[in-house]
Amino acid sequence: MPAPSLPAFAPPRRILLGPGPSDVHPRVLAAMARPTIGHLDPDFSDMLEQLKALLRYAFQTDNALTFALSAPGMIGMETCFVNLIEPGDKVIVCSNGVFGARMAEIVRRCGGELVLLETEWGKPVDAQQLELTLRANADTRVVAFVHAETSTGVRSDARVLAEVAHRQGALVICDTVTSLGSIPLYVDDWQLDAVYSASQKGLSCTPGLSPVTFSAAAVERIRQRKQPVQSWFMDINLILSYWGDGVSGVKRTYHHTAPINALYGLHEALRMLAEEGLQASWQRHQACHEQLVAGLERLGLHLLVASAARLPQLNTVLVPDSVDEARLRHDLLSQHGIEIGAGLGVLAGKTLRIGLMGGSATPQNVAACLHGLGAALAAQGWAPASC
Amino acid sequence: MPAPSLPAFAPPRRILLGPGPSDVHPRVLAAMARPTIGHLDPDFSDMLEQLKALLRYAFQTDNALTFALSAPGMIGMETCFVNLIEPGDKVIVCSNGVFGARMAEIVRRCGGELVLLETEWGKPVDAQQLELTLRANADTRVVAFVHAETSTGVRSDARVLAEVAHRQGALVICDTVTSLGSIPLYVDDWQLDAVYSASQKGLSCTPGLSPVTFSAAAVERIRQRKQPVQSWFMDINLILSYWGDGVSGVKRTYHHTAPINALYGLHEALRMLAEEGLQASWQRHQACHEQLVAGLERLGLHLLVASAARLPQLNTVLVPDSVDEARLRHDLLSQHGIEIGAGLGVLAGKTLRIGLMGGSATPQNVAACLHGLGAALAAQGWAPASC
Repeated sequence: MPAPSLPAFAPPRRILLGPGPSDVHPRVLAAMARPTIGHLDPDFSDMLEQLKALLRYAFQTDNALTFALSAPGMIGMETCFVNLIEPGDKVIVCSNGVFGARMAEIVRRCGGELVLLETEWGKPVDAQQLELTLRANADTRVVAFVHAETSTGVRSDARVLAEVAHRQGALVICDTVTSLGSIPLYVDDWQLDAVYSASQKGLSCTPGLSPVTFSAAAVERIRQRKQPVQSWFMDINLILSYWGDGVSGVKRTYHHTAPINALYGLHEALRMLAEEGLQASWQRHQACHEQLVAGLERLGLHLLVASAARLPQLNTVLVPDSVDEARLRHDLLSQHGIEIGAGLGVLAGKTLRIGLMGGSATPQNVAACLHGLGAALAAQGWAPASC
Repeated sequence: MPAPSLPAFAPPRRILLGPGPSDVHPRVLAAMARPTIGHLDPDFSDMLEQLKALLRYAFQTDNALTFALSAPGMIGMETCFVNLIEPGDKVIVCSNGVFGARMAEIVRRCGGELVLLETEWGKPVDAQQLELTLRANADTRVVAFVHAETSTGVRSDARVLAEVAHRQGALVICDTVTSLGSIPLYVDDWQLDAVYSASQKGLSCTPGLSPVTFSAAAVERIRQRKQPVQSWFMDINLILSYWGDGVSGVKRTYHHTAPINALYGLHEALRMLAEEGLQASWQRHQACHEQLVAGLERLGLHLLVASAARLPQLNTVLVPDSVDEARLRHDLLSQHGIEIGAGLGVLAGKTLRIGLMGGSATPQNVAACLHGLGAALAAQGWAPASC
């Protein structure tokens, strides 16, 4: 079989304003290119301890069990469910978009008894409805919801939902894939028990890692399991042999080979977040969002989500009937080098998703996006009524 | 909660001669540091098609379904099992080391009926024993074995074992984590059905990706499943929506966000393998192994594995009783910047593992390793009888 002869890959210049990945800073890219060392090297071990401290800051938690899983955010989701749920456990999944629906699918696959609380796409999860559902299902072991729904751009009130769940004695699994680093998130204050995120959105690292954090109650639930976790790779009890549980000291033993260079990158991305400060990062996202919304209004475009529940970092724009959304995205990418996202699920073809996440959230990028969008709309004959 | 102030991570210089990761070439590190683009970007899509072609060459296969999973090699192992096995399926696991034992554990966790064929650590799997075991278990659906056992340094005869398994109508899962790129491996000629590997050994890429390839028979088995795969993340039917099945053309839809920059790195590492050529790479590994063994003999050290079954890329060295192996490794790392591996499982404390994998397999590295080992042994008063 002959050896293929192929050129080196030269990625084109892009401004990443989709639902993730976001633009990765040259500092993070440079960190990833540092020489690989062993995953059991004492120097690497020290770096991992720093990474845990940096993640605790990003999550605003003192949880001992805070680290990064060696795979994308979807592994974070599945890891939380397969560890906390045993076959037959009742789980309420609050679903208001694609990622809530995925949670439900995972509950089914790990033999949980699923209670699905569905909310219309584009609306936040309703705490009163959750309370009623919990009362009708008093034996619920876990309540799960998405803090920031990437498919719709909706923020649900994680603090209130967690409070309702705890009042009935359930643990809380919270998806913070699109919220971490971009909007206020206080894992300890809000008492979220099992929380997962991803590296490539608000943290502006490359994709491939899933930061997670677990409360003492979640750890206790995992320790008291009667049956082994169905996944070997995702079994927290095994993973801890490498990452350490933050209590018993660190003596790393081999579970799998950690993605060394990706972790260099995450360490640097988290350092940048700590340098800027969480509050400053949240404010920057909000300011860019307001700049974007004002510009979209000038273009005669409207957002799917009511202003009170909007995510600044993920803006779902309704596409006018006369406009071909696929062509719009194609023109933006090919003529302006700007990537924005398509609608997902029931919103496919009807919406665009403009991400302003992490390092992508700059006034310059917002201006470039509005400029490109205006040109691409004009090419399709779109003239806002207000002009 | 205050923001931690931590320095940038500066990895020390190391020569990586453990069981992986191996040394990563600056070309691969530079590729990983190229700007991140979107995982649905048409340019990225073209790169993925090249990556598939390069992987087919490395695996020596025409399998349409050949790609890289977005996580370390252990996800490759679990993915093969959870897709090919349904609860109640009989599976023969040939175990002669740590990784065979892990296969057995995963079979249990996915509800397979496990038949464990154990072989003494340090010996290859015996084809005659497999034949007898298969005759006693005629309803076996899958036979699984490790081509190159990283815990012992043993090569089993994958071609013959697969032939025996197929004669009884079983499919074959083969672990090539430590063999791919380092020793002859012919997926099509040997008729291996589900094969997984890892990026950080013979391919000399950074850790974090798991190349896999599936035969038409394996794909058919997966398509005919009666029950859903227990893992959502590892469900091949879902992953294919992004990677494509190589038959129906590529229209990528979102499953998870691919680890963009890690895939840039793998693309470059595979280009380097194709430039050198598989045969040349295999010969280089063999030559370095012979250089190492000759030097070890001069130091009065012996290998665990009989010469016929030795892996050139993973050399398990018996540690003399009078020598403290942990101190030996520590001295090598701290005084010579050379990482070698500890023994695993029953071989812990009694053996060292010297890896000569991918880019680490150079005459210079072998010479440096022998020099350092000689000095570290002398520091413990070891004087070979033959000196």
